[in-house]
Amino acid sequence: MGYIAMNREHVTVLGLGRMGTALADAFLSAGHPTTVWNRTAGRADPLVARGAVRAATPGDAVSAAGLVVVCVLDYDAVRALLAPVAGSLAGRTVVNLTSGSPEQARAAAAWAAGHGFDYLDGAVMSTPPGVGSPASMFLYSGSPAALAAHRDTLAALGDPVDLGEDAGVASLYDVALLGVMWATLSGWLHATALTGADGVSATAFTPVAVRWLSAAVTGFMEAYAGQVDAGHYPGDDATLDVHRAAVGHLVHAGRDRGIDGTLPELSQALIGRAVDSGYGGDSYARLVELFRKG
Amino acid sequence: MGYIAMNREHVTVLGLGRMGTALADAFLSAGHPTTVWNRTAGRADPLVARGAVRAATPGDAVSAAGLVVVCVLDYDAVRALLAPVAGSLAGRTVVNLTSGSPEQARAAAAWAAGHGFDYLDGAVMSTPPGVGSPASMFLYSGSPAALAAHRDTLAALGDPVDLGEDAGVASLYDVALLGVMWATLSGWLHATALTGADGVSATAFTPVAVRWLSAAVTGFMEAYAGQVDAGHYPGDDATLDVHRAAVGHLVHAGRDRGIDGTLPELSQALIGRAVDSGYGGDSYARLVELFRKG
Repeated sequence: MGYIAMNREHVTVLGLGRMGTALADAFLSAGHPTTVWNRTAGRADPLVARGAVRAATPGDAVSAAGLVVVCVLDYDAVRALLAPVAGSLAGRTVVNLTSGSPEQARAAAAWAAGHGFDYLDGAVMSTPPGVGSPASMFLYSGSPAALAAHRDTLAALGDPVDLGEDAGVASLYDVALLGVMWATLSGWLHATALTGADGVSATAFTPVAVRWLSAAVTGFMEAYAGQVDAGHYPGDDATLDVHRAAVGHLVHAGRDRGIDGTLPELSQALIGRAVDSGYGGDSYARLVELFRKG
Repeated sequence: MGYIAMNREHVTVLGLGRMGTALADAFLSAGHPTTVWNRTAGRADPLVARGAVRAATPGDAVSAAGLVVVCVLDYDAVRALLAPVAGSLAGRTVVNLTSGSPEQARAAAAWAAGHGFDYLDGAVMSTPPGVGSPASMFLYSGSPAALAAHRDTLAALGDPVDLGEDAGVASLYDVALLGVMWATLSGWLHATALTGADGVSATAFTPVAVRWLSAAVTGFMEAYAGQVDAGHYPGDDATLDVHRAAVGHLVHAGRDRGIDGTLPELSQALIGRAVDSGYGGDSYARLVELFRKG
């Protein structure tokens, strides 16, 4: 254990699935004394070999550190794990990185408040191999005081992003960001199918697509965010009329090549609805109105 | 005209809509002697005031320079403009930045070859205000020799990206990249509607989404491009089984908030089809098979 820095905060990790193991590993790599517990105790063996302390029970694990990180299957498992040891949690901070809904996170925060411990709900925006990299985002919401107090420790996992005191917001960002990812990856895969039909490899197309996303598309998002908040969508740069003409080219090119058209036809339908409603001179950001609660 | 550098290549720009005007303006800013023509001659006035030469006819315009850039309404307009002056084009290079389909671009290249002039088809991946910035991509395909000969001149418009000798490829990339853009922007707008329902502003959410796209999602694209080309989709980092569980959370969160679910339900349906076909252990890249020609 010579490589454990004794001036670092002691942490406990409950749950050693792939993600929980990566979390404990990152704490150990950053020199934090780390206590671990898993229902199947053998999962802890590699971490113990690296210097982690194996706790015999959840109660022992919770009592070992002021900062308790939980990463288990779902919120039911969180409750089943923590309820019997709630008395030992008073005065400590629980960081729950288990995936769940905003409503579950808010309920967990209320339950924590009733038992006198600080609660941070988190979302890991990384696969397990990305844990420990400062490029990986860890989203937190709940107790801002707990995040401030443990920020340096949590930074061992990835860059901590503070989303404020509504404990449900980290989970909400999580699913929202995954939605952006699925839409983008589907659009990209459709594009590789389209260009692939004319003999372009995905390996050739993708660097251009990455550059387009990074340099141009994200710029539109930044420019349009204020329009979304203001509910006012001036089409200064590119109007929905222009998009409508162009999306027709995409749909046509796909049909000519026998590519599935569901995704571009959805874009076409959204743009068409907005234009038909008289918003042809507006920017693409106008489409948010079609997603919002009717 | 003192600011025109006489050692710079002389260029002609045909068509002075918003984009054509931006192109001519960028050539002038880079010190290129620039001849312009537009059907409505008055559109040239501001450019002439900046040093451009107004040609009285398309024939005069074409004869003025070795590099002729065309940006008009569509390919029919290109043909109507160039056919009467085809004899004057022999030995020159035409760069066609008019929007159209890959098939139209290939037909134009064949027509050019029959008339003894070099042809480059291009796609402007920028709005008019972005023309002239090295951050803007200009995609070219057709004559690699013509691009090599005029690359320095064309760099005045934006960064020239060489897509090879199939003249249709620039147009194909154009619609494919726009498809990526629409999918991404729609995903982002849906996400702002979702997070907005819980009081998160788009201005707060968007920087996190931009970072997520730039640092993580584009990394998935780069990692998966080789999988798409190989037709082999190992789910080393995140499997479709994992995506299926998560997309259910997104659909549920949207329904709870009354947000339109068409876009996430499309992701859910694609993922579900692949999982039901036995590919739950594969990566998201497997979905390209659902887009490809059956």
